[in-house]
Amino acid sequence: MSDRSLKMAEAARRAQRRLGSVPPATRDRVLERLSTLLAERRGALVDENRRDLEQAEADGVAAPLLGRLELSDSKLTTLIEGVDKLAQDRDLLGREVRKTELDENLVLSQVRSPIGVLLIIFESRPDAVIQIGSLALRSGNSVLLKGGAEALRSNRALIGCLRDAVAAEGLDADAVQEVEDRRAAQALLEHDRLIDLVIPRGSNELVRAIQAATKIPVLGHADGVCHLYLDSSADLETAVRLAVDSKCDYPSACNAVETLLVHRDFLPRFGPVARILTEAGVELRADREARAFCPQAVAVAEDDWGREYGALILAIRTVGDLDEAIDHIHHYGSAHTDAIVAADPEAQRRFLNNVDSASVFANASTRFADGFRYGLGAEVGISTGRIHARGPVGVEGLLTTRWLLEGSGQIVGEYGPGKRALTHRPLPVD
Amino acid sequence: MSDRSLKMAEAARRAQRRLGSVPPATRDRVLERLSTLLAERRGALVDENRRDLEQAEADGVAAPLLGRLELSDSKLTTLIEGVDKLAQDRDLLGREVRKTELDENLVLSQVRSPIGVLLIIFESRPDAVIQIGSLALRSGNSVLLKGGAEALRSNRALIGCLRDAVAAEGLDADAVQEVEDRRAAQALLEHDRLIDLVIPRGSNELVRAIQAATKIPVLGHADGVCHLYLDSSADLETAVRLAVDSKCDYPSACNAVETLLVHRDFLPRFGPVARILTEAGVELRADREARAFCPQAVAVAEDDWGREYGALILAIRTVGDLDEAIDHIHHYGSAHTDAIVAADPEAQRRFLNNVDSASVFANASTRFADGFRYGLGAEVGISTGRIHARGPVGVEGLLTTRWLLEGSGQIVGEYGPGKRALTHRPLPVD
Repeated sequence: MSDRSLKMAEAARRAQRRLGSVPPATRDRVLERLSTLLAERRGALVDENRRDLEQAEADGVAAPLLGRLELSDSKLTTLIEGVDKLAQDRDLLGREVRKTELDENLVLSQVRSPIGVLLIIFESRPDAVIQIGSLALRSGNSVLLKGGAEALRSNRALIGCLRDAVAAEGLDADAVQEVEDRRAAQALLEHDRLIDLVIPRGSNELVRAIQAATKIPVLGHADGVCHLYLDSSADLETAVRLAVDSKCDYPSACNAVETLLVHRDFLPRFGPVARILTEAGVELRADREARAFCPQAVAVAEDDWGREYGALILAIRTVGDLDEAIDHIHHYGSAHTDAIVAADPEAQRRFLNNVDSASVFANASTRFADGFRYGLGAEVGISTGRIHARGPVGVEGLLTTRWLLEGSGQIVGEYGPGKRALTHRPLPVD
Repeated sequence: MSDRSLKMAEAARRAQRRLGSVPPATRDRVLERLSTLLAERRGALVDENRRDLEQAEADGVAAPLLGRLELSDSKLTTLIEGVDKLAQDRDLLGREVRKTELDENLVLSQVRSPIGVLLIIFESRPDAVIQIGSLALRSGNSVLLKGGAEALRSNRALIGCLRDAVAAEGLDADAVQEVEDRRAAQALLEHDRLIDLVIPRGSNELVRAIQAATKIPVLGHADGVCHLYLDSSADLETAVRLAVDSKCDYPSACNAVETLLVHRDFLPRFGPVARILTEAGVELRADREARAFCPQAVAVAEDDWGREYGALILAIRTVGDLDEAIDHIHHYGSAHTDAIVAADPEAQRRFLNNVDSASVFANASTRFADGFRYGLGAEVGISTGRIHARGPVGVEGLLTTRWLLEGSGQIVGEYGPGKRALTHRPLPVD
């Protein structure tokens, strides 16, 4: 472990303790200041970003990546609006989750608290600096930010805004720190006693590499292998709409569908679904039984199941019943988002009850799996982990709780059989 | 990874999917059956335990360990009562945490779900098999149980009761499995894709060894280094009562106090506190300044700070103010439980607000940090981790959530600027 990474993490922890314990109004003001700074420095930010873009173009970076790298004037406006909204949101720190009277003048409350120090590792999109940085400040967490090398100047300028906003309110700017390069990030991943949560935002490879490299809990998902199951009771029009939207609306998104499971009894009606998918430019890879109803499909291979294409390709499998569909999802899926199209309420109920994924839908596109669409406000990421936050994660995923007990001199030696009993009376939370 | 451990974990996952998706009444009946079986087999269970005890005595096992190993008739009665209570508790699976209308006929609900497969590694106390096993069944989780070698016969007989109770209700007995030995447990720790949570119950060394050996999330705590701070405003009688109870009520417990921090201005009144601790058999180790007020204390060494004695030894440090006390706690503590004795409400408020530990108390003994005392029902353990559950953990710590979306054919392509807007209307939960 490098000395420098240790110092960074320790400074982040110190700064966090202060940031997380000042009154809510101070964090409100930090965010208001951030909004002002972003507006004031708009020209300089766009300039820095232009330099990154020029360098990237000179390096022959591909067009879609350039699009993600660009910090346009309109993207900046959206970012400032997001910060303004967050500044007005209710500060959750210290809010009671549960409150219990244990005895007279002995009151237990469970209150929301920051998680602590977050390490964010992301690729190419400089707007992530402000989106995640402002969420971290709102929730009283320190944040170490490692962005892509191609966005170095943009990220540095944005991190400067965050640090200056924190310092302007008398807090320690080290609540936000830039992680210089991959080696520095690697060194930080070893500090599992100083860093509480790693959030990778980027490719499957990035997430997997980080999961393999650290003992710090990782919030996110490596794979988004989503399934859409067309039940025998599926309405044809709904099947077409959901198949097309789930596959084609944004094929590289983690919540796009990769495999279509089709009930054998639906196959005679499958032709139109396949045809419209083909017309939308989707390459179909189907098993032999399904190919009889969509001759344009090529033969699917065993390694197509569970594959995240991230492109206009769709694997198609025939299943004999709902249970076979669910077994396929459990075997090959990534527990991200899976959906059923069915008119039969019992089929819907069984699918929703039995599929063990972070998001399970009936008659809605898998693309709805998203923090904004769920109404969580800004999104930190989508977690396929099974502890802490699961599915789309908003600001609550950056919080933990503490238990506060306010007494008047009580000792446990006075309670127990034949002595005083604890009351455990639930109290209303504020 | 051994083939056998893989098969065990896979079988546990399969069994869990069934256990977690049957109606609540089925899990009620499993627990009722378990209670009946424990009562019916009471004689056989005590016999098996007697053999373990005889073997342990022959092996020269120490008396306190024999006490923990013993499964007395009264311990069995307590266990049966606990299972009966759990059978009557409301089943939380499928319960809504949050419900939101996204649009007409498009309703999102976040519902409680089992975590999945738990690996419990515990030492010597066979009652843990039933306590944790019944909590796992209540919450729809599969459980792999690795107990101490000295309790092999007792554990096996108790695990038999759990398995038979599960099978009697038509479920797969592999929802509960015995992990034979250390090597088998070691092999299971590598299956981070099949096992979702490890809960170690035992010594600091056991917990640390497990944390070091696995990428599976570990729920628990290695250290319980708790502090009691006597503020300048502390009431003397309260200081005495809390110091004695926190240190002496059960010195080997994780929530017993290890270090007493004393405000310089309290020192002139510290004599009586020290005297009563000494009378209670506590060895005092104090810094030079404090020793002037408790001459019976020996000199404290630097490595006494942050040490978990688990015995009647107490380190004592003089601090100049509340902030110095808090800094000491953050530097040397384990973020388990820390308490202040203070009459001054502002000192209480600052301590409760600023100390970043799982449990933070004002004028109450650190020994209150316990799931039963907190009113959580049965306790899975106490977590010093900062994600998922924190502090004393009850059945809720064995649950996660899933997001269910019930629509009527909605696709995201129909929403957005200039199109339909999502309503995000909160709905009452059931």
